[in-house]
Amino acid sequence: MGKNLTKRSEDYSKWYNELVVKADLAENSAVRGCMVIKPYGYAIWEKMQAELDKKFKETGHQNAYFPLFVPKSLFEAEEKNAEGFAKECAVVTHYRLKTNPDDPSKLIVDPDAKLEEELVVRPTSEAIIWNTYKGWIQSYRDLPILVNQWANVVRWEMRTRLFLRTAEFLWQEGHTAHETKQEAIAETAQMNDIYADFVENFMAIPVIKGRKTESERFAGAVDTYCIEALMQDGKALQAGTSHFLGQNFAKAFDVKFTSKEGKQDYVWATSWGVSTRLMGALIMTHSDDQGLVLPPNLAPIQVVIVPIYKGEEQLELISRVALEMKAALGQKGVSVKYDDRDTMRPGAKFAQYELQGVPLRIAIGPKDLEKGTVELARRDTLSKTFVAKDDVVDTVTDLLQEIQNNLHQKATEFRDTHITEVNNLDEFKEVLENKGGFISAHWDGTAETEQKIKELTKATIRCIPFDFVAENGSCVYTGNPSKTRVLFAKAY
Amino acid sequence: MGKNLTKRSEDYSKWYNELVVKADLAENSAVRGCMVIKPYGYAIWEKMQAELDKKFKETGHQNAYFPLFVPKSLFEAEEKNAEGFAKECAVVTHYRLKTNPDDPSKLIVDPDAKLEEELVVRPTSEAIIWNTYKGWIQSYRDLPILVNQWANVVRWEMRTRLFLRTAEFLWQEGHTAHETKQEAIAETAQMNDIYADFVENFMAIPVIKGRKTESERFAGAVDTYCIEALMQDGKALQAGTSHFLGQNFAKAFDVKFTSKEGKQDYVWATSWGVSTRLMGALIMTHSDDQGLVLPPNLAPIQVVIVPIYKGEEQLELISRVALEMKAALGQKGVSVKYDDRDTMRPGAKFAQYELQGVPLRIAIGPKDLEKGTVELARRDTLSKTFVAKDDVVDTVTDLLQEIQNNLHQKATEFRDTHITEVNNLDEFKEVLENKGGFISAHWDGTAETEQKIKELTKATIRCIPFDFVAENGSCVYTGNPSKTRVLFAKAY
Repeated sequence: MGKNLTKRSEDYSKWYNELVVKADLAENSAVRGCMVIKPYGYAIWEKMQAELDKKFKETGHQNAYFPLFVPKSLFEAEEKNAEGFAKECAVVTHYRLKTNPDDPSKLIVDPDAKLEEELVVRPTSEAIIWNTYKGWIQSYRDLPILVNQWANVVRWEMRTRLFLRTAEFLWQEGHTAHETKQEAIAETAQMNDIYADFVENFMAIPVIKGRKTESERFAGAVDTYCIEALMQDGKALQAGTSHFLGQNFAKAFDVKFTSKEGKQDYVWATSWGVSTRLMGALIMTHSDDQGLVLPPNLAPIQVVIVPIYKGEEQLELISRVALEMKAALGQKGVSVKYDDRDTMRPGAKFAQYELQGVPLRIAIGPKDLEKGTVELARRDTLSKTFVAKDDVVDTVTDLLQEIQNNLHQKATEFRDTHITEVNNLDEFKEVLENKGGFISAHWDGTAETEQKIKELTKATIRCIPFDFVAENGSCVYTGNPSKTRVLFAKAY
Repeated sequence: MGKNLTKRSEDYSKWYNELVVKADLAENSAVRGCMVIKPYGYAIWEKMQAELDKKFKETGHQNAYFPLFVPKSLFEAEEKNAEGFAKECAVVTHYRLKTNPDDPSKLIVDPDAKLEEELVVRPTSEAIIWNTYKGWIQSYRDLPILVNQWANVVRWEMRTRLFLRTAEFLWQEGHTAHETKQEAIAETAQMNDIYADFVENFMAIPVIKGRKTESERFAGAVDTYCIEALMQDGKALQAGTSHFLGQNFAKAFDVKFTSKEGKQDYVWATSWGVSTRLMGALIMTHSDDQGLVLPPNLAPIQVVIVPIYKGEEQLELISRVALEMKAALGQKGVSVKYDDRDTMRPGAKFAQYELQGVPLRIAIGPKDLEKGTVELARRDTLSKTFVAKDDVVDTVTDLLQEIQNNLHQKATEFRDTHITEVNNLDEFKEVLENKGGFISAHWDGTAETEQKIKELTKATIRCIPFDFVAENGSCVYTGNPSKTRVLFAKAY
């Protein structure tokens, strides 16, 4: 199986598509642009969800659920948001099918069941949620509202790719309401930090925190914070966004509150989200030509034990050792699969688990039984060692941590060597073409220049990093003065 | 707040609707028939999800995710299923809005963005899933497939009620594929048993397990197993169903496998689901005129501590005790909220937590500090006692178990006294009118009789209980011979 994977150096995009399907993560469905997330892929997503959900709850957020549909009149209430999403939304116009009179085995849309008002399948939920918050908020006592929703959303994208850009995807969207501007900005920053912490430390993906330029901002936001990651092919991927919405939605939906001092004011808002797109980031940060590489924190199976045997008797002896080991590792919170299927040869199993990114593989054969050892193989380095049976639990728990760290370190090194400072457009183009990655360059701060550079190079401003220091320079395109560099890249 | 609740004896339906809204469980949205599940209601649903998900995984099931949309051609492939759901499905016909040329502040559906094939918003996912399974199954080695999905589904119901019947609802749907008929039937039974165990022991709601008659079966199923609960107003509520689908979907989607013996055969299927409807069952089983009553297993807050104080100094002393108690209870896995808000009087807090069904309330005042006691109030019995401070942890953990058991016992007594054997149609009508509940009666086994009884009485056959013994009798309607009683009731 693994052997059939296209090499990354040959065709990165093809490698990605093949890997997603062959590693049993997801596949295309009968519905244009919509994916099926297969059990193995979904198990990884569940681990992401569990960790994020814990972090949200630790910071005082609660989950809730809002309708899938947004009536057109609500959808269009916040003008910029509506404009931003109108071109790609699925619209429900009817609520019934009926038998086709010309062919009774078929169904047609019943023209008598036309909705009075069309319903937009949510591309994001600000509109329906702020329309709801209107009923929840009267006084400062009702604030803050710190709510998150795990849900599916639909954006009718024309060109789709598994996990990266699909018509339907899964995500979480936080929607909070606050008394003051400062509080809402602090929430925006907090959630962006939570995303950064999660992606860095749980997914082992280094990210750069920053803010979006006006043209890359979320439709309807005053300010968009983001975390940007770098993929192995030198393209950037936006891994999460957190928006300060100002009073835009409160005004659009007339959500006011009475302050402690008895004054009426519009509520301040944020929204923030990450999606199944993170699966794409995960794959394109760590994986190799053999297949998926998973950080142990996200691996549904952290260790697989494969018996190498001839005949029932050997299998029985090996199984005894393997199951003891599995139990002892389970005690330490390590998830172990013992694969004693007799329908597949050990070599084929090795290839399968390599392809699926299981961090550690233990093989036990008759010679190991004699010597009291096992063979331990690391997925990240593809290296093997023999370990004394009695040391397996300690070695495995240490190694899982080491692999987690190693993946983060490797990805950070790659990312750091792919941030290049350039000082003119020729350098810009040359780096972009020959090396890729983030390009740190001066920009004059105008949307026009940003657009021109995009047209010339296909690179966009990924973010204005929070940790970039002031530096006087001149814009790589116009030569106009600039006070700080920003990060450009081609992006997913 | 609680005082404004309509009494159950006055208007049960009104009581229910008020309770759902006032206890902050859910509310109607701007979308006809779609609800907003509020954080407190959603927290209860999350507890249900977590427990069910654990049970599914313990029995070898994995989660996955399939598209929200079903292309019309797939939807209509299994004839009975299509017929069963065609009359109530939301249909996406377009994928874009555009500015209304007559009023640029408004959007209209873009007629140029009509889909080639309409998409049905899934009312249930058999069609899209079996179309997917076709690609997953070639050999017996690929079986069984044991997959579950947590998702939203849409059924365009004309009359809706919060949790009980909403156009969009949340549920889980299991979809399994098996080599043999026996294996699929065993799975159908296993999942019905898991539902029964969960609803009885976690939700404290007694249920009757049985099978549906042909006319009450799931559209496309060969056999439907179910669990039926009884609400306080004497109406039944179907709390979960598990379907043996035979080879119907395998045939409709041409899903064959090669057996160990090298023969080709269609795959055997099951599907099973429970939904946010269970929230309705929970409310209508345990709650009272004061508001919600929650079994401790499902209570987001199991214990609330309310300080009774005058001035900052008293509050500080009480808070010290309360926070110690909270920590000690937390150690035992009890979820405690300490409500020291100064914006609400203790009496109002008491009423709020009563309304929201918090199982235990601890009040601590200055006299308690002197005596080393606290006041402990049970929500289920509305009784109060004083408990020595040092006994609180033990008393609370015991009481939570006792409340869980008490609720189950009370509900079981009510249910058991509301199963009435009748032997003719007059008795049937009289019991239905004056007492309600389940009516155990002989029926001749025909759909015609079932329909006639329904027309006459509005009662339907809830199930043919698995544990009913054979008994010769004659049908209450036709007088024709019958070999076993079945359970009739009016139902939600």
